[in-house]
Amino acid sequence: MIRVSVVGAKGRMGATVVDAVKNAPDTELAKALDAGDDLTQITPENTDVVVEFTVPAASLDNVLALVNQGVNVVVGTTGWTDEKLARVKEALASHPDVSVFIAPNFAISTVLAENFAAQAAKYFESVEIVEMHHPNKVDAPSGTAIHTAHAIAAARKDAGMGPIPDNTQTDGGSRGQVVDGIHVHAVRLRGLNAHEEVLFGNPGEQLVLRADSFDRSSFMPGVLLAVRHAGENPGTVTVGLDNYLDL
Amino acid sequence: MIRVSVVGAKGRMGATVVDAVKNAPDTELAKALDAGDDLTQITPENTDVVVEFTVPAASLDNVLALVNQGVNVVVGTTGWTDEKLARVKEALASHPDVSVFIAPNFAISTVLAENFAAQAAKYFESVEIVEMHHPNKVDAPSGTAIHTAHAIAAARKDAGMGPIPDNTQTDGGSRGQVVDGIHVHAVRLRGLNAHEEVLFGNPGEQLVLRADSFDRSSFMPGVLLAVRHAGENPGTVTVGLDNYLDL
Amino acid sequence: MIRVSVVGAKGRMGATVVDAVKNAPDTELAKALDAGDDLTQITPENTDVVVEFTVPAASLDNVLALVNQGVNVVVGTTGWTDEKLARVKEALASHPDVSVFIAPNFAISTVLAENFAAQAAKYFESVEIVEMHHPNKVDAPSGTAIHTAHAIAAARKDAGMGPIPDNTQTDGGSRGQVVDGIHVHAVRLRGLNAHEEVLFGNPGEQLVLRADSFDRSSFMPGVLLAVRHAGENPGTVTVGLDNYLDL
Amino acid sequence: MIRVSVVGAKGRMGATVVDAVKNAPDTELAKALDAGDDLTQITPENTDVVVEFTVPAASLDNVLALVNQGVNVVVGTTGWTDEKLARVKEALASHPDVSVFIAPNFAISTVLAENFAAQAAKYFESVEIVEMHHPNKVDAPSGTAIHTAHAIAAARKDAGMGPIPDNTQTDGGSRGQVVDGIHVHAVRLRGLNAHEEVLFGNPGEQLVLRADSFDRSSFMPGVLLAVRHAGENPGTVTVGLDNYLDL
Repeated sequence: MIRVSVVGAKGRMGATVVDAVKNAPDTELAKALDAGDDLTQITPENTDVVVEFTVPAASLDNVLALVNQGVNVVVGTTGWTDEKLARVKEALASHPDVSVFIAPNFAISTVLAENFAAQAAKYFESVEIVEMHHPNKVDAPSGTAIHTAHAIAAARKDAGMGPIPDNTQTDGGSRGQVVDGIHVHAVRLRGLNAHEEVLFGNPGEQLVLRADSFDRSSFMPGVLLAVRHAGENPGTVTVGLDNYLDL
Repeated sequence: MIRVSVVGAKGRMGATVVDAVKNAPDTELAKALDAGDDLTQITPENTDVVVEFTVPAASLDNVLALVNQGVNVVVGTTGWTDEKLARVKEALASHPDVSVFIAPNFAISTVLAENFAAQAAKYFESVEIVEMHHPNKVDAPSGTAIHTAHAIAAARKDAGMGPIPDNTQTDGGSRGQVVDGIHVHAVRLRGLNAHEEVLFGNPGEQLVLRADSFDRSSFMPGVLLAVRHAGENPGTVTVGLDNYLDL
Repeated sequence: MIRVSVVGAKGRMGATVVDAVKNAPDTELAKALDAGDDLTQITPENTDVVVEFTVPAASLDNVLALVNQGVNVVVGTTGWTDEKLARVKEALASHPDVSVFIAPNFAISTVLAENFAAQAAKYFESVEIVEMHHPNKVDAPSGTAIHTAHAIAAARKDAGMGPIPDNTQTDGGSRGQVVDGIHVHAVRLRGLNAHEEVLFGNPGEQLVLRADSFDRSSFMPGVLLAVRHAGENPGTVTVGLDNYLDL
Repeated sequence: MIRVSVVGAKGRMGATVVDAVKNAPDTELAKALDAGDDLTQITPENTDVVVEFTVPAASLDNVLALVNQGVNVVVGTTGWTDEKLARVKEALASHPDVSVFIAPNFAISTVLAENFAAQAAKYFESVEIVEMHHPNKVDAPSGTAIHTAHAIAAARKDAGMGPIPDNTQTDGGSRGQVVDGIHVHAVRLRGLNAHEEVLFGNPGEQLVLRADSFDRSSFMPGVLLAVRHAGENPGTVTVGLDNYLDL
């Protein structure tokens, strides 16, 4: 049994992780802590891996504290910058036996869609991205859509492809945001959660990759996958669930 | 048999109309004319209705000439403004037995989708439009998408509905063009022809209306429907295929 | 304020109704009863309308008891047959001031999609239905899909349309179940809830109507709509939410 | 310039290949032959590769004759069996410098969708296939859908996965055809050409892979890709366009 502690256990994501850890056949819950709790309760003696799902303002300090405690960390909190990552790498230099894993997105369908989009990119003349979310989301487009656009653009560049055909001459904004040459559209609709569609086009054909995340439970298989791989690549920060997918 | 003449018969749409008129069981081809041909060849003696599919710069003069010849006209050319319509109405005042029909879109699926969108509008908190076309199209968004947005906005206003929920705080253009309060997105993709999707959302539910026009043949059932209704409402200009649909 | 009692208040749907009634601005909760509770607690003195969401085996008796108490009933339980309906009509004969409303489906998106499908039916050569649900559903296809197929078939018949074109000569079952001449396909997929897609086709064009019900909250706007119309058509049983939609 | 001859040049696919060969920057048309023409006109002296697009009854003899002439062949005709393949391999044994390539499907979007489906298979509890074609198609489901089902089933087996969850207890045929444990549905709709959708589901999430082939032009990029790889793997038969895709 993998002993898992959860930091941010009272948050919506954290609480879902607590349940998932209790229900999976190969994991058991060690400590469930939340804001204000003493992180030094979590030690290598009681915990194999910590899942940290808090808020961007707290996450870096949590991860540094946990690394210093000598436990592996799986991080689901967003908002990681190169500066923050550098701080974690610095801490790991003194703890070469500890591993940190950060995932911008734990939904396997989304990670696969992005990976497939990068594989398909060089075979299609045209490509656009449409992401759809609930109307409470404050940023547009989603970080996932931006990430996918960069991956597609990089694949097109590697293949020596030119610009995407587009003869638009008049537009009042309907053509969306251009991210690294890729048009990205963001829909906000009550009833939806988090969805991404990548459309590829050639003469006479289309390929559509669509990932739907209907609710928080969609992230649990990805979280458990990361938990099971925790401890791999000690002394480093691994970013992205695709590192643990067999693609 | 309805005797149909075609003006613009060598154009892509006009040629398709010529074929459709020849193949339909209740229509026969009278005159097939193109740019430079003498329109006075078309008379009530040889023609029940003319289908005019040319270019915006020529269409008004064609329609006026045909009205003055005393024949009913079905117009598929785009680019009609209030000013142009006024000129046609003026001509019809002297020809009260002639009817003119203008359709911004002859695709029945598209006309139905827009009509259903207007019916559905007042039952959903959220709504957005995504239109998709081939990359040679010069204008974005499509006239159809703008027309649909206005129809939805009018229905929401009639029902006393407030603004659509949207908590977006940062955006670089991905949220699309706002037409009468409705967000409209335009995708341009090689391989596509003309497609429109209207997304409606409420807590826990979504309604999607999608019209696909894969090629010019999609317009022929609508053209023939208009041809069969030609002569109705003499002395006036009728705009929109929905006038002839039983909704 | 409309005073609403709920029968089946501890069931998943009933509990969601209790919350919806408490949260809506124009309704308030009167009695919340469940199996074993005495229904005579619900009277015209404390209740304007009862929402009954129980199980098919209990629903008829509940409705008869409530009619005899003299209160209007909105029924969400499924499994109604002509025989059961006849029993309710009989009871209403002695209570001409009471109204009963039964909805096979309270999701507005689904009711609209079916209504639009019936409107569109006569304009398209081809039509098929694909419904998609979670894998725990025991019946296939869904009652909604069957109902939609009948509505489409009736509209085609009224319009004097012939059979749908289909040149299939070898098939091992992939063409689905034929309901009243309409092919119906049922997908069962973990992660989905209740979804229906109606595909219409003509040469060169397609119209797709899709209704997604992601969770139980999708039924609450429909339940509240029925609650607000309760008392209309006294002495009769009204079946179907479309009676209260302005289509 | 790659010198390409076409056998079946007057067929719909063959004629499209002739045009594609003439228009591509790196290919030129050598011989364009059809039924009744003498295949010995095609020789290594005038042709680098032959594209054969005829009918199942003629294709084996054509390929054997061309191999015996010593020219590489790209085959688009369907209907290949293990017996027919064995005959070609036999012929190649005497012509170890000649290569034969056979593609069940030249649409890159379809080949990618199937490949991605096989990659994704082991990460999802549920999966179903819906293919959609024009109503003139005589077989259901499509060979592509069956091929995709086998690929997914093999991937699930390799990963040691059990049966797909399905609690259906009553069904009149709506659940489709079960191919190697995978439910496959076939839709036939006027206006469509050839389309395939693979739906994957986990708790709370869905991944959809969709390939649309709108017309014959969709096969040309795949045909040209095969033409450019012709001559690789001499003395053998290569089956499937994925051999030439970088996945």
